[in-house]
Amino acid sequence: MTHTAIRHAFERERLIRFAHCDPAGIVFFPQYLVMFNDLVEDWFTEGLGIEYASLLGPRRTGLPTVSLNCEFSAPSRMGETVTLGLSVERIGGASLTLQLGCRHGDEARVRARQVLVSTSLETHRAIPLPDDVRAALGRFVRDAPSSTGDT
Amino acid sequence: MTHTAIRHAFERERLIRFAHCDPAGIVFFPQYLVMFNDLVEDWFTEGLGIEYASLLGPRRTGLPTVSLNCEFSAPSRMGETVTLGLSVERIGGASLTLQLGCRHGDEARVRARQVLVSTSLETHRAIPLPDDVRAALGRFVRDAPSSTGDT
Amino acid sequence: MTHTAIRHAFERERLIRFAHCDPAGIVFFPQYLVMFNDLVEDWFTEGLGIEYASLLGPRRTGLPTVSLNCEFSAPSRMGETVTLGLSVERIGGASLTLQLGCRHGDEARVRARQVLVSTSLETHRAIPLPDDVRAALGRFVRDAPSSTGDT
Amino acid sequence: MTHTAIRHAFERERLIRFAHCDPAGIVFFPQYLVMFNDLVEDWFTEGLGIEYASLLGPRRTGLPTVSLNCEFSAPSRMGETVTLGLSVERIGGASLTLQLGCRHGDEARVRARQVLVSTSLETHRAIPLPDDVRAALGRFVRDAPSSTGDT
Repeated sequence: MTHTAIRHAFERERLIRFAHCDPAGIVFFPQYLVMFNDLVEDWFTEGLGIEYASLLGPRRTGLPTVSLNCEFSAPSRMGETVTLGLSVERIGGASLTLQLGCRHGDEARVRARQVLVSTSLETHRAIPLPDDVRAALGRFVRDAPSSTGDT
Repeated sequence: MTHTAIRHAFERERLIRFAHCDPAGIVFFPQYLVMFNDLVEDWFTEGLGIEYASLLGPRRTGLPTVSLNCEFSAPSRMGETVTLGLSVERIGGASLTLQLGCRHGDEARVRARQVLVSTSLETHRAIPLPDDVRAALGRFVRDAPSSTGDT
Repeated sequence: MTHTAIRHAFERERLIRFAHCDPAGIVFFPQYLVMFNDLVEDWFTEGLGIEYASLLGPRRTGLPTVSLNCEFSAPSRMGETVTLGLSVERIGGASLTLQLGCRHGDEARVRARQVLVSTSLETHRAIPLPDDVRAALGRFVRDAPSSTGDT
Repeated sequence: MTHTAIRHAFERERLIRFAHCDPAGIVFFPQYLVMFNDLVEDWFTEGLGIEYASLLGPRRTGLPTVSLNCEFSAPSRMGETVTLGLSVERIGGASLTLQLGCRHGDEARVRARQVLVSTSLETHRAIPLPDDVRAALGRFVRDAPSSTGDT
């Protein structure tokens, strides 16, 4: 049985490489999380129009992950081109909940929910999501309106 | 506020290294999952008495991760020695649910729940947990009796 | 002083990502070697017309590195787009000597020479370079004619 | 034919893990360079008595690699315990030339020469080797007396 994959608001294709794979010949699961991190970078720069490197560099704003849930439903193999996708599930005061996916055509490979928190890189403490980030998020929200609640 | 860490049935110390850390100067979160994977290896070999490399090599039995939930409550920095720990939460027909943690003294850094499934490396399909693995798991079960249910 | 970079017969652009960088904020040098490995994959598939994944998978032919020389002349930072390039320096019986480079515009960042050997993935022993690989290499040779010598 | 391995002044054992290995079932070569980087860390902290993390952190002194030469003479497999070793070949004004090796018993797996340069992490420019580092190096020098020359 395979799982049908969700289409996301922001998607990018990615080749599964030798360096992603383990002795079992399939993607070593932490490599999916590196690929999702790369996708978040691309989404900031290309989707939100806010260069990720400038956020972390000159603006000294970090986006560490505080919570992560993943389901790995089928393996990916070297040489496959998969589609990585991302939607916004919830916008908090300092946090952002993302839905992420890796699919091969219509077959789901990985589904994840990741909560990022906006932090000062000087103190590693939470700070409000930057205004330009908040303003740009709208068109990537999956369904529900953005919350204005805690965290 | 810091979270108090859980003590686990199997624990190993680990030095946080330059190669684990990101431009924010803290552990890049996929590296925790690599460290937990290393811990599972050590637990098989040293805790269960079943050499992990022989399971994957000669015995052609894989243990891919099918589900993963993590909470990252505080960052870890280069040069710190953290304690990685593991307990068994549930034993299924083909699956194993583990609780994993990374703590620095009494401060929780990461808590995770990971479900592994026993597979044939020829077919990448689930197979029953090997009998010697099942027999060795007992003393690492956190509290509840082992289930005999599905998966 | 900066070093002027060489242009190569096969070049691809690559974004320097968060995951490539270390606590000093620059590319952690083993990550260049992963990027060069990715480049060799792309060169096989797109430059030579021989899908890299099929070579390692169905054809069971490996291309391990037996020798590597690198000069790192300037650091690369997150958010930069660098150009990775590759030329063939020498074609042996079972080996291939590549020149590799990473440049940012005209500034050299890394120069490398890497010797790969064609092996059987069953025995991990050297085997002659596959005929289709040998036939496709010609237009990527930097200057000297292909040798027919040892290794 | 196997190569007989050199014994080094500073040696540490290391288990080859699942996460080090590639789809060919052997160590992916950039992982050796991560392991050597870990060894340099241990050598600073345990061999030289200068905590590596404090050098990079509070003291803001980097040790980037400017040159690297490696010979990979035999593959290493998951589950093997290898010995990683390090000796000092040459001490320059700002640089340090190390000989590194990975062996399995008497069989050489990897031999490397790596040149590190002492830099300011503020400017990424070379600075003289710190005096305490220079003073501690003596007993790890392989044979020749320390040079007092350039770089």
